[in-house]
Amino acid sequence: MKQITKRMKADSFRMAALSEDTRNKILLAVKEALLENREAIFAANRQDMENAKANNIPSPVMKRLLFDEHKLKTVADGIDQLIGLEDPINRVVLEREMDAGLLLKRVTCPIGVIGIIFESRPDALIQISSLCIKSGNCAVLKGGSETVNTNRILFETIYKAAVENGAPENCMYQAQAHSEIDELLDCYGSVDLIIPRGSNAFVQYIMNHTRIPVMGHADGICHTYIHKEADLDMACRILVDAKTQYTAACNATETLLIDRAVAKEALKVFLPVMKENHVVLRGTMEVSDLLKQIGAEGMDEDSLIREEDDFATEYLDLILSVKLVDGVEEAIRHINTYGSHHTDAIITNDKESAELFLQQVDSAGCYVNCSTRFSDGFRYGFGAEVGISTSKLHARGPVGLEGLTTYKYKLYGSGQTVEEYANGSKQFHFKDL
Amino acid sequence: MKQITKRMKADSFRMAALSEDTRNKILLAVKEALLENREAIFAANRQDMENAKANNIPSPVMKRLLFDEHKLKTVADGIDQLIGLEDPINRVVLEREMDAGLLLKRVTCPIGVIGIIFESRPDALIQISSLCIKSGNCAVLKGGSETVNTNRILFETIYKAAVENGAPENCMYQAQAHSEIDELLDCYGSVDLIIPRGSNAFVQYIMNHTRIPVMGHADGICHTYIHKEADLDMACRILVDAKTQYTAACNATETLLIDRAVAKEALKVFLPVMKENHVVLRGTMEVSDLLKQIGAEGMDEDSLIREEDDFATEYLDLILSVKLVDGVEEAIRHINTYGSHHTDAIITNDKESAELFLQQVDSAGCYVNCSTRFSDGFRYGFGAEVGISTSKLHARGPVGLEGLTTYKYKLYGSGQTVEEYANGSKQFHFKDL
Repeated sequence: MKQITKRMKADSFRMAALSEDTRNKILLAVKEALLENREAIFAANRQDMENAKANNIPSPVMKRLLFDEHKLKTVADGIDQLIGLEDPINRVVLEREMDAGLLLKRVTCPIGVIGIIFESRPDALIQISSLCIKSGNCAVLKGGSETVNTNRILFETIYKAAVENGAPENCMYQAQAHSEIDELLDCYGSVDLIIPRGSNAFVQYIMNHTRIPVMGHADGICHTYIHKEADLDMACRILVDAKTQYTAACNATETLLIDRAVAKEALKVFLPVMKENHVVLRGTMEVSDLLKQIGAEGMDEDSLIREEDDFATEYLDLILSVKLVDGVEEAIRHINTYGSHHTDAIITNDKESAELFLQQVDSAGCYVNCSTRFSDGFRYGFGAEVGISTSKLHARGPVGLEGLTTYKYKLYGSGQTVEEYANGSKQFHFKDL
Repeated sequence: MKQITKRMKADSFRMAALSEDTRNKILLAVKEALLENREAIFAANRQDMENAKANNIPSPVMKRLLFDEHKLKTVADGIDQLIGLEDPINRVVLEREMDAGLLLKRVTCPIGVIGIIFESRPDALIQISSLCIKSGNCAVLKGGSETVNTNRILFETIYKAAVENGAPENCMYQAQAHSEIDELLDCYGSVDLIIPRGSNAFVQYIMNHTRIPVMGHADGICHTYIHKEADLDMACRILVDAKTQYTAACNATETLLIDRAVAKEALKVFLPVMKENHVVLRGTMEVSDLLKQIGAEGMDEDSLIREEDDFATEYLDLILSVKLVDGVEEAIRHINTYGSHHTDAIITNDKESAELFLQQVDSAGCYVNCSTRFSDGFRYGFGAEVGISTSKLHARGPVGLEGLTTYKYKLYGSGQTVEEYANGSKQFHFKDL
């Protein structure tokens, strides 16, 4: 892997130098090659599906492994969109005359070599590699083993189209063995960034086992907070979506905070709907007592939350933590302490409380009156995403093309020395052009 | 330290919420308090200078420790400039209607709690704390021990002015014991970013001993490359500046690359000037032979560079590595392999070679026909800098106000659920406002 990424690093400057036209031409060729190879791709996917069935993979996961005509159309449309997007690199974002004949430009450029480890979803391989091509980055791709056959033919198709249309030989590499993940983590110096997608434990493992910068998120402990001025019916609809629309997603709500003043009333509205959607509540003794007051069962031993720290639990299941708070400031404090800085929502009709929440909640996504499930590159209109970042450095939230770029400062001089400016014989005049 | 940074974290949301007016008012108060306390500050500095003298601190370092009327005026002017700069936070950098009643805003905000460990220069403490106030960040500051008395009174003056004018109690903390550095590195969760400034070994130590993101640079192996179309007299002037104007700086040139075609002629021009400036050359056998050909002495054993890896040496002294290359592509390869991605310059009159160099050299600063010493926040017109980053994530190059901010996505809804968009009953229409 070290040799592979070293060669990739050496080629990354050629990849970065490809013109916008060439990169878009490659994307078009990738799309056409995928459409042309459809039968072979579907056949490989059928084999993966059969293997998955033989291995008793649960049916919701099976759905993610499937790559059919519908998925192919979606990714082909995605590539078309990507071609239409503005070039993310070679953009001059600052142009400043420091003095006569001394011009400073800040220009966006690709990050270089990116290692991306992602879950078993064949469309993810296509989206990620297209984003890397558009942004001029080289990439090591490692997809989930459940779709090894589909991934192999997709990768070969994309790689061939890329190289035939001008990409350098080492623009992309597909890692297939699980052991290659650890090898990749060891490639400090030739790999500039690792983007892991997957379970909390997996992402934590990656973060703790490499010196290469890692972009992503380990857990998604998202909150929906019901303010005392909330429309409870709207709150209920949003809560059902945030909890159940896709339970296993990182942006699903794990904790419900309710203002004490409206807690009883709110639980009366929410409880039957939660039951109907098979959502199990966990909560404090206070919540349990309140449930009894409205004629429901209280919390059993397993559902009682006794320790504040237990609120830092990501269920990824039809389970919801519930806690009562005394207003927006306590809600903010709870979220900033026990949340994962991913996405959190307030439900309220009070604009001032909403603004306070948006201002002070320290998360990549801070929402008013909508579902936490909206945090997603496609839904934000980024075309696609390579992941969601909870880091506060570089990209935060859904990461699209822009998050795959950095910048450099180009300085055009005509013989200037620093000494001339230090001894006062010349002065900077800073003029932005 | 953990308790201190936890309290600071809790206060960071209040620091972030200060209005632009309040932050500028604090800066003004800081400036006035510094001017008012001048005599006490100078007295403290005299004590540091005396201690330094007693400890036989070399005179170039002594110059850095000095804080006098001239330095006070410079930092006061710097604060005035900072007050005049546009607010780096609460800027709406994206405003997108995703659908009717569903508005996405990307808004810049402070990073939160920043730990900054810096060298013995009292003016650095003032610059760094002013940048943090302007950008709404809380900061733990640890300055060099040689100016402990000056730092203490400067910090107290700044802190008092900040808190009296609206900053929260835990907006700033001055670490004074060396042991507090390790304690600070252990504050993952409450400290968002560490910015270390200092020696290569020190910065490496920091990078290897914390889970907190680190922004900065360990070494500065900068190159000046003399292309065959260079004006050799201009090249010579630039080289003297890049090597000798401030030898200990990270952006001083450590390696001279010369096109083989003009090497003899170039060395004839450079050698006497380098001698005059007491610069010792180190180089390959080929360079040694060439020196003999022009009637100079060749390299002695100590000055001969036999291993390519030795070119990755940062001298921070009047020593210059010299290597011959066959054109711009080999120069780029050398720089990308042995450099530190900090700042590198090409000297040429050929525009095409210059553009290739700027495009493919993988450094924060890529220069044409000027000194590598220009890479600096003040010289770029950023007002001041907290450091220079060689990372490709987040800020790259000199880091000013912008590098101290991140952003969050605020989403304003009116009851929207993801399911409505998933099942097709609603569609996004993405309209940038």
